[in-house]
Amino acid sequence: MLHNRALSCFVVYGALLIVKMYVVAIITGQVRLRKKAFANPEDAVRHGGLQYQREDEDVERCRRAHRNDMENILPFLFLGAVYCMLEPSLMAAHAHFLVFFLGRLLHTVAYLGKLRAPIRSVAYSIAQLPCFSMAVQILVAALSS
Amino acid sequence: MLHNRALSCFVVYGALLIVKMYVVAIITGQVRLRKKAFANPEDAVRHGGLQYQREDEDVERCRRAHRNDMENILPFLFLGAVYCMLEPSLMAAHAHFLVFFLGRLLHTVAYLGKLRAPIRSVAYSIAQLPCFSMAVQILVAALSS
Amino acid sequence: MLHNRALSCFVVYGALLIVKMYVVAIITGQVRLRKKAFANPEDAVRHGGLQYQREDEDVERCRRAHRNDMENILPFLFLGAVYCMLEPSLMAAHAHFLVFFLGRLLHTVAYLGKLRAPIRSVAYSIAQLPCFSMAVQILVAALSS
Repeated sequence: MLHNRALSCFVVYGALLIVKMYVVAIITGQVRLRKKAFANPEDAVRHGGLQYQREDEDVERCRRAHRNDMENILPFLFLGAVYCMLEPSLMAAHAHFLVFFLGRLLHTVAYLGKLRAPIRSVAYSIAQLPCFSMAVQILVAALSS
Repeated sequence: MLHNRALSCFVVYGALLIVKMYVVAIITGQVRLRKKAFANPEDAVRHGGLQYQREDEDVERCRRAHRNDMENILPFLFLGAVYCMLEPSLMAAHAHFLVFFLGRLLHTVAYLGKLRAPIRSVAYSIAQLPCFSMAVQILVAALSS
Repeated sequence: MLHNRALSCFVVYGALLIVKMYVVAIITGQVRLRKKAFANPEDAVRHGGLQYQREDEDVERCRRAHRNDMENILPFLFLGAVYCMLEPSLMAAHAHFLVFFLGRLLHTVAYLGKLRAPIRSVAYSIAQLPCFSMAVQILVAALSS
């Protein structure tokens, strides 16, 4: 792996983004405990009673952030891996991964921090740019081979 | 990559399916704007007021289509990549990927177009066939090695 | 593939976990039919009438189990593949994959079987341990190369 420097760079960002998703999951659990808002009756009973099986706006916000991560970070893990097989220059590859990483990091901060619109949407859009770029490069390389 | 022709074929379908998922996300955003139905208060405020933080049946339909894509297309990206490492014939591999691709394309069209049941369910089931086939071939190859 | 024994071991667990996710999807569909609770009007109409477009607690439970699988099993597929490229010992690799596999299997059983808290949460936490371990090993290897 470590002989392909773009791939080595990619797996760092991929692993960091997965850890970022795990952090959102942990935050969701903490908000559930703090707000006493559980999805399952067995969890509610354990934490005080069935009345705590309920929805909470802050919990739902965390879940929306997590779902948006799945919609975008998981496809990036595929596109980035295939893109590295095209042997891009390290600088071009690093730029793609860094823009995606920073865009997704800002997306999470804007979502959980309730930053004013359209910061979150702009972060989402910026992060999509390297994804579209990689998808196009993959299709061009594979279809022209 | 491009020396393994099954893999080259796979990444084309994988990238196309990811782009298809991105299109569903873009449609979701357009429906949110057109129906003025936002998940977050900050988005609703930006587009006219807190009364537009609300659910909409068409938005939920887009979100169900997207979620079903995640449930099925993302595992395909794993199964297809591993399956290519088994060095299948290009024709067999192409048949697997094409059936999945067309099944998922029809699934999206049936979902967003509100086609009558059971078109969407049949499309889902057809797309699952190559996935089960690849999973079985992977398990047989790995366990018999 | 089959020359890297850790990778061969990984793809077996990866494929089994994907099949496990497919089984949750099939169970969800069966519960929808048995409880007559459909997400889409076209499905409800086909099965007796629009009054069956409704939420059901057992269906939602299946969907939560499936979503949690996506949040955790799909990132594992990335981490495990990259971890195998680090050429871990077969025993260490097998231990990582087996703990994750058993943790996720127990998670599904606890979720669908409505086992008392905190069995499901403990299963989730146990399964996260090898994921964090692999993420750290990937970051250390990639950043020190």
